[in-house]
Amino acid sequence: MALIVQKFGGTSVGSIERIEQVADKVAKFRDEGHDMIVVLSAMSGETNRLIDLAKQVQERPTPRELDVLLATGEQVTIALLCMALHKRGYDARSYTGGQVRILTDSAHNKARIREIDEQAIRADLNQGRVVVVAGFQGVDEAGNITTLGRGGSDTTGVALAAALGADECQIYTDVDGVYTTDPRIVDSARRLDRITFEEMLEMASLGSKVLQIRAVEFAGKYNVPLRVLHSFKEGPGTLISLEDDSVMENPAISGIAFNRDEAKLTVIGIPDTPGVAYQILSPIGDANIEVDVIVQNIAQDNTTDLTFTVHRNDLARAEAIVRETAKKLGAREVIADSKICKVSLVGVGMRSHAGVASKMFKTLADVNINIQMITTSEIKISVVLDEKYMELAVRALHSAFELDEPGAA
Amino acid sequence: MALIVQKFGGTSVGSIERIEQVADKVAKFRDEGHDMIVVLSAMSGETNRLIDLAKQVQERPTPRELDVLLATGEQVTIALLCMALHKRGYDARSYTGGQVRILTDSAHNKARIREIDEQAIRADLNQGRVVVVAGFQGVDEAGNITTLGRGGSDTTGVALAAALGADECQIYTDVDGVYTTDPRIVDSARRLDRITFEEMLEMASLGSKVLQIRAVEFAGKYNVPLRVLHSFKEGPGTLISLEDDSVMENPAISGIAFNRDEAKLTVIGIPDTPGVAYQILSPIGDANIEVDVIVQNIAQDNTTDLTFTVHRNDLARAEAIVRETAKKLGAREVIADSKICKVSLVGVGMRSHAGVASKMFKTLADVNINIQMITTSEIKISVVLDEKYMELAVRALHSAFELDEPGAA
Repeated sequence: MALIVQKFGGTSVGSIERIEQVADKVAKFRDEGHDMIVVLSAMSGETNRLIDLAKQVQERPTPRELDVLLATGEQVTIALLCMALHKRGYDARSYTGGQVRILTDSAHNKARIREIDEQAIRADLNQGRVVVVAGFQGVDEAGNITTLGRGGSDTTGVALAAALGADECQIYTDVDGVYTTDPRIVDSARRLDRITFEEMLEMASLGSKVLQIRAVEFAGKYNVPLRVLHSFKEGPGTLISLEDDSVMENPAISGIAFNRDEAKLTVIGIPDTPGVAYQILSPIGDANIEVDVIVQNIAQDNTTDLTFTVHRNDLARAEAIVRETAKKLGAREVIADSKICKVSLVGVGMRSHAGVASKMFKTLADVNINIQMITTSEIKISVVLDEKYMELAVRALHSAFELDEPGAA
Repeated sequence: MALIVQKFGGTSVGSIERIEQVADKVAKFRDEGHDMIVVLSAMSGETNRLIDLAKQVQERPTPRELDVLLATGEQVTIALLCMALHKRGYDARSYTGGQVRILTDSAHNKARIREIDEQAIRADLNQGRVVVVAGFQGVDEAGNITTLGRGGSDTTGVALAAALGADECQIYTDVDGVYTTDPRIVDSARRLDRITFEEMLEMASLGSKVLQIRAVEFAGKYNVPLRVLHSFKEGPGTLISLEDDSVMENPAISGIAFNRDEAKLTVIGIPDTPGVAYQILSPIGDANIEVDVIVQNIAQDNTTDLTFTVHRNDLARAEAIVRETAKKLGAREVIADSKICKVSLVGVGMRSHAGVASKMFKTLADVNINIQMITTSEIKISVVLDEKYMELAVRALHSAFELDEPGAA
């Protein structure tokens, strides 16, 4: 008998049949005696349909009115799910973001939750009602409708779980958990039973798009246990929580993340004066381009080299800016390379296991992969490679760090 | 420079093109310096689409959740119209029923407006903003979303006009005004420049479905001048207001209404005791069947006859009930007839013009139409006829009372 928040995404409520299945799942948990709060997204495709409508009227729709428009998507699904629960004989009540009320700042289209008034919800729960809340939306101090931006429904779920002290926030999605790496790349990838918030953040930001980063951050901050589950298949999913002290020894590595969304810019032969990195990177930041990995070589012959990565979509803009700066600084050359990938080992166990890095580098050397850049954090080591080696590198590391499914070839 | 409320129905906002046309119309009035409040329905077809969705989930959808669902329809159109106005450079802001706030009772699906908080609207108007309000919806004391039932957007428009003391409430529709009678039946039917609330009520309840009765009642009660106009054609429309004292002499008749929605039940040879009408009609009322015209003959030979009309859809049920009662009372016979029509002359001028009734009866006699029932009110005379004479009767009366378009054949 716990208080459980369940969040279902757009595909999980994409048709009447699926809404009925969600109702069955909610009913099952209710039957077990749990107090239930359900958070829903809009039916899959609905948000895009509404955005299309808006763009037919106004090329860049007014943010306030776009939120009024988009907020209708979840309002439809919460009403339909309540009806499906009523049909099954369960008491249930829907709430829009404004009704709950989920108070946000006034940053339309990307609002942040400030506060949740949980009184009405608690009163309903005490009466045995299932509470169904529209995800993705809230209301500002002045009563304007706001939305939290893409993936905001995960955040709504976590925020409600935090506000009400839920025992677990279950995120239902189209995968059955978090994997050691992408099963489409590595056959023997294995579902993790649990993973820490920190690890999940590293995995998520590196391209394992199971959960929205904001939601994981939020959950970590308020210590809300998150569980990723498949909407329509049974299974325990993956629990995302604080580090589990009961596990005597964490494995060194939890998973391998990777992406090929980045591109690399190298400035060669920059006269080595203090502030080189600042002079090159600050105009990039001014242009709202995010920089990921940065590596500066030790100065030789009074010149230095600087390499950094940006999102591939930003490469052309970034390159133009860098060439400008390089000319001013008297640098020798600028090289752009979009054919790269980034592969990262992630694991809190890394802290206590020496030799993870050297084992990684040896594994890659053994399969003749040249490392272009290296960057490390407390629980992550990332390498930048030629993109053609990505799958080879991921498979070799997955096997070397014994992440393979037990019994897999 | 006036304060104008404009209400546009579903067909007027049925597509992006039409929403753009509505924006043009609103902009034109704003350019003339008027303060503008716009009330919108959902895009045509949208409410039915949502009801279909609900019925796929639950045969009789929970009223509270149905309102949550249906209220999304207008929320979409108000956002889109605001975007269209912004594109044209006009300041505009949308409000849902809950945001305004339009306070209603808690009768979901058929709520009645209790109060409107006009402060936010007035503040916006003072800043030169066009205020765009979702029709058809409100919110109850507890913050639940309510809807006003079909045609509720007209009521929203009138209620806003009343609350803010608007100079005129313009109802845009697919006809260019109120006609002396249905132009599809009488070629020479003429658009009326003005008509009183009372006349409009009689016309509306008798089948001229231009405006919702509730909205006209509301407008009459708060003396809000209503104007019916065509959404996309220019023209003065028809003004519905209090009786105009400046017109020296009102014409006797403003229009002719008719319908063939009714059926007639006659109970013959009822032993004439007090309370016969009550005994026959109260079981009908108990079955929630509405009775329209009632005529009781003078008793002869200690028996009496009673005839009344009900909606044709209710005839079978009503007949079964009446046969039961007739047996108990010892009546001789029950006759059901669904092949009838009702034709009514409507006009406030009738009060001061003697001889309207006799002129009506003579006109019908001249074309050999037999009158089956007669009922009268202050501003209306209705006759029930064989339905096959309906068009003939309407045309003959239209011409006899000089309602024809000047110059028509």
